[in-house]
Amino acid sequence: MIKLVLIRHGQSQWNLENRFTGWTDIDLSATGLDEARKAGEILRNNGYVFDLGCTSYLKRAIRTLWVILDQMELMWIPVFKTWMLNERHYGALQGLNKVETALKYGDDQVHEWRRSVNIRPPALKLNDPRCERSDLRYRGIQECVPLTENLEDTQARAMAYWNETIQPALKAGKRVLIAAHGNTIRALVQYIDRIPGDDMASLNIPTGTPLVYELDDLLQPLRHYFLGESGKVESKSVTDPLPGNPQQQPGADATG
Amino acid sequence: MIKLVLIRHGQSQWNLENRFTGWTDIDLSATGLDEARKAGEILRNNGYVFDLGCTSYLKRAIRTLWVILDQMELMWIPVFKTWMLNERHYGALQGLNKVETALKYGDDQVHEWRRSVNIRPPALKLNDPRCERSDLRYRGIQECVPLTENLEDTQARAMAYWNETIQPALKAGKRVLIAAHGNTIRALVQYIDRIPGDDMASLNIPTGTPLVYELDDLLQPLRHYFLGESGKVESKSVTDPLPGNPQQQPGADATG
Repeated sequence: MIKLVLIRHGQSQWNLENRFTGWTDIDLSATGLDEARKAGEILRNNGYVFDLGCTSYLKRAIRTLWVILDQMELMWIPVFKTWMLNERHYGALQGLNKVETALKYGDDQVHEWRRSVNIRPPALKLNDPRCERSDLRYRGIQECVPLTENLEDTQARAMAYWNETIQPALKAGKRVLIAAHGNTIRALVQYIDRIPGDDMASLNIPTGTPLVYELDDLLQPLRHYFLGESGKVESKSVTDPLPGNPQQQPGADATG
Repeated sequence: MIKLVLIRHGQSQWNLENRFTGWTDIDLSATGLDEARKAGEILRNNGYVFDLGCTSYLKRAIRTLWVILDQMELMWIPVFKTWMLNERHYGALQGLNKVETALKYGDDQVHEWRRSVNIRPPALKLNDPRCERSDLRYRGIQECVPLTENLEDTQARAMAYWNETIQPALKAGKRVLIAAHGNTIRALVQYIDRIPGDDMASLNIPTGTPLVYELDDLLQPLRHYFLGESGKVESKSVTDPLPGNPQQQPGADATG
């Protein structure tokens, strides 16, 4: 039986400020750091060990992974970083406050941008200082850097990474921990659980909470559960609310 | 012109306690953490950028690298970790206080163990709880885990890593930062500068101080210097003392 653990980064400074983050490289808040530490403790106390860590190019996910590996005495394991696990790109919404954006464009429009699988927010212009194409970390892969994305776009690159890297590692017997973002974890969960596309937007991925998938040898899902301080928290699906979890707080929603 | 930066980890808790450390996985002291932060600031303020980080399997080196990359806004670059850059293995001396060991075995014997290139300290027994062969991180490579090493043994594995990984990366134009240990950095320095074997033991590598090598296209050394808070500190050789550097402190010597 293969175990895969997914974790959304702890609360970031912009989760706290309720701003669209996307590819903006915002760090964890003090609460987010604490969530990462607790996640590491929980995994250690439950006897988890990993052979490989995968994360994005964004520091809120990388730091979450580093803090967890530090807590688990696993700083030495290999870590793969990839832009393909970055959060969904939010285009010209990046940096804007979610409430102000709703006041300006209307709730319906913002809801559509956030939750529709095939509608993209307004694109960033190439000369916008927020555009990541001139960022050093994407040098050589500028053409992969989106100017905006819908959920399907995000899912396509997360799936490409699954197929190229995660799936072969799991099949080779590696125990994999993925520290990523609300929308890239939703994409992986949707794929593993074969959730229809339209239901993707309603998947709730709480911050800083290990989500364990047990898979058979063909990587078919057997069951999944969150790991909380009081042990396994079973849930029929990741759409079920998690008792006492910060997912219900306004700044901790899964839309990045 | 190719630039390679080498850095010995900041002061560890056992540097501070003046104990033989070797492969024991001891963390940085508060001073060591601070040294790592300063090294990151110095590299950032001098305009350095790296494409690849290399480090050992030991947390004092990994944390030094992580802290530097954090300071430089380079957390996203790939990092390779290898046992081949681990500190020299100190055999049965690991964990012992250096002064007490000298009182027990005599100064000459201890000096010989520490500084002779071809004499090994007493080996760890396989059933010694300090023996790393049962450590999870060396599973699958137990036969590579030494029970003791002399300086030549350490150099052989550091050179193997140079040839397999560092040299090809440099030739491919990658800007490489290596965060490692006193004896593995000495091994690399000796090789790059073609220093005769007998002189190896006298190379001083201060903790937490970036050592920059400028190399030509064939990786022949052009010059090298340490980077300090006041800028470049030129030195004809790494055997020259560095002004104001902690290398003169008893707990910060280069013998691990």
